[in-house]
Amino acid sequence: MGARLIATPQSAHFPDVLRLQGGGSIRAYDLAFETYGTLNADKSNAVLVCHALNASHHVAGVYANQPKSAGWWDNMVGPGKPLDTDRFFVIGVNNLGSCFGSTGPMHVNPDTGQVYGADFPVVTVEDWVNAQALLLDQLGIRKLAAVMGGSLGGMQALGWTLQYPERVGHAVVIASAPNLTAENIAFNEVARRAIVTDPDFHGGHFYQHGVVPQRGLRIARMIGHITYLSDDVMNTKFGRQLIGEGYRYSTQDAEFQIESYLRYQGDKFSEYFDANTYLLITRALDYFDPARHFGGSLTAAFAQVQAKFLLVSFTTDWRFSPQRSREMVKALLDNRRTVSYAEIDAPHGHDAFLLDDARYMATVRAYFDRVAQELTV
Amino acid sequence: MGARLIATPQSAHFPDVLRLQGGGSIRAYDLAFETYGTLNADKSNAVLVCHALNASHHVAGVYANQPKSAGWWDNMVGPGKPLDTDRFFVIGVNNLGSCFGSTGPMHVNPDTGQVYGADFPVVTVEDWVNAQALLLDQLGIRKLAAVMGGSLGGMQALGWTLQYPERVGHAVVIASAPNLTAENIAFNEVARRAIVTDPDFHGGHFYQHGVVPQRGLRIARMIGHITYLSDDVMNTKFGRQLIGEGYRYSTQDAEFQIESYLRYQGDKFSEYFDANTYLLITRALDYFDPARHFGGSLTAAFAQVQAKFLLVSFTTDWRFSPQRSREMVKALLDNRRTVSYAEIDAPHGHDAFLLDDARYMATVRAYFDRVAQELTV
Repeated sequence: MGARLIATPQSAHFPDVLRLQGGGSIRAYDLAFETYGTLNADKSNAVLVCHALNASHHVAGVYANQPKSAGWWDNMVGPGKPLDTDRFFVIGVNNLGSCFGSTGPMHVNPDTGQVYGADFPVVTVEDWVNAQALLLDQLGIRKLAAVMGGSLGGMQALGWTLQYPERVGHAVVIASAPNLTAENIAFNEVARRAIVTDPDFHGGHFYQHGVVPQRGLRIARMIGHITYLSDDVMNTKFGRQLIGEGYRYSTQDAEFQIESYLRYQGDKFSEYFDANTYLLITRALDYFDPARHFGGSLTAAFAQVQAKFLLVSFTTDWRFSPQRSREMVKALLDNRRTVSYAEIDAPHGHDAFLLDDARYMATVRAYFDRVAQELTV
Repeated sequence: MGARLIATPQSAHFPDVLRLQGGGSIRAYDLAFETYGTLNADKSNAVLVCHALNASHHVAGVYANQPKSAGWWDNMVGPGKPLDTDRFFVIGVNNLGSCFGSTGPMHVNPDTGQVYGADFPVVTVEDWVNAQALLLDQLGIRKLAAVMGGSLGGMQALGWTLQYPERVGHAVVIASAPNLTAENIAFNEVARRAIVTDPDFHGGHFYQHGVVPQRGLRIARMIGHITYLSDDVMNTKFGRQLIGEGYRYSTQDAEFQIESYLRYQGDKFSEYFDANTYLLITRALDYFDPARHFGGSLTAAFAQVQAKFLLVSFTTDWRFSPQRSREMVKALLDNRRTVSYAEIDAPHGHDAFLLDDARYMATVRAYFDRVAQELTV
């Protein structure tokens, strides 16, 4: 392992209009990003890491003098880590519409002089990929050694292989899916309804009222958390453990440890996450469905793919189950593409993709070893 | 099949104090109930049917001149049905704290002259069973041929065999569990938080403000609905079907059929269900845990049981999974009790217990045939 990686957030400005899939457009926007490692002479060692719902461009390392500010995938990305920044030039970028530095609903629309709020245009996975491609253009990177992501980040990696097939060498798609199931959409919709019906939402223009729809955000986060964990790991971690000595018989006070855990997660989230961003990002999840333009055939959709793939799923992930990864593996094999697939027997549910699991880490490390070998040939 | 059963709601008054498990008490309360069929001369053919979260004493039949008012288990209970009211005297009772006729939070506390609201005492499965036993006393029924219920109703059936072992011949426990898992509690808690944090909840005293916390009730019901269905049946029924011709790209309008289905269910529920009742009933679910007083051993808890059992579970029920029924079967067998167990391969998730499935219906029918034979010997 090398020394602790120090991360430095940067920002790229894009004056031109970006046309969006939903019919809207955005101009004069910024993307927050970070890079780790060194771009080699022929600019062939770049790896883009795409984030999921509530993460950001701060993928790895810590900020100077902030030892607790580790990036969200710091166990995966860094010097000597599975995605080794001693070999690769890794890029993290905050997506358009997010709330961690890139242009989003809390910023001012240059066309109106007003904060976007609910008027921020709907963005899709495809739009994010287009914006990321423009960032790579600014950085002078023509082709990615790899694009990588988990969950919604995995969808962006998929999107790259479909929208810019010639610009991607490898795609690492972890705990992801080729689209959402009805149940996935249902959970997103309940979370959105909790936010939208919070009286403090004010139709998405809560900023000018000086309030935040925290009630709705709390509920949304609690629902999310349940779906990130497996029933097993919840039972192991919390089971029916009480907060007090015995039942206190209350309908409103928390009685069980799982209740105070969820309340705490909800409270924390509602302090920092933007409500309009939550709507945008869950909708991007709902809309992603590359087979849609191919009569529902994922095999037909993947015909254009050129990248080689590593897919990883986790046995107890009931949000994006192994079955969904197998669908993608099958569609790639139907097209005779090169695919590695690992189904990791981990107890942690969907969250497993962010956690340390020796087999999972070894799989990704081995895969990137191979990617690195291709570079040096 | 006989003629259409006409149901007639009745009410029983209980002037005396009922001490509750949570330390509270209630007096001068009413229980709404219905009966179907005829009690035989030796009063040995009574079957109590216990209801789950949002059902009532109206188990079977229709009300006179209301052809669409079928009871919630009308496919299971009635003349010639699996629980045959030509042979059995079936009793449905609305639980204390519910909102369909029995004394609940929207009624006046005789001690204060005020509507109970959030001050309605916490009630448990055990309390309901005690109240049901007092109703049977009024009806002159010493021993039940059987007690039957699904989900939370199954917990009450279990409770009967533990609290009044000598008063139960058979227990039919369907799609139930010996306690809630952490995930079950988590879903209940999110639903409760949605209700309690709705500004229209007013700490549970919304009645006097002339409002109803409908936002919270809607969210609660939407979450509930997701957990009642299987992922499979949601995909079959709704999949990714859109409401319109194509994507309309909106974060707030419903785009997918599953969204409008859930919104509709939430709206409907929020029009008739009492918010305080929702809190009470989900807490009764959380608290139920008969093994708690036996060092967590269900086997030890079941040592006192005398009834014979039929347990039924459904393969796609992820709320109360087959594994939970198997735990009960094992604990009963550990005690050498007579148990029949059917695991029905049905696609409908937890909701399956309310639906027509030929194997399920045949199983219950065959079991009650045997119960009926015992009566006539």
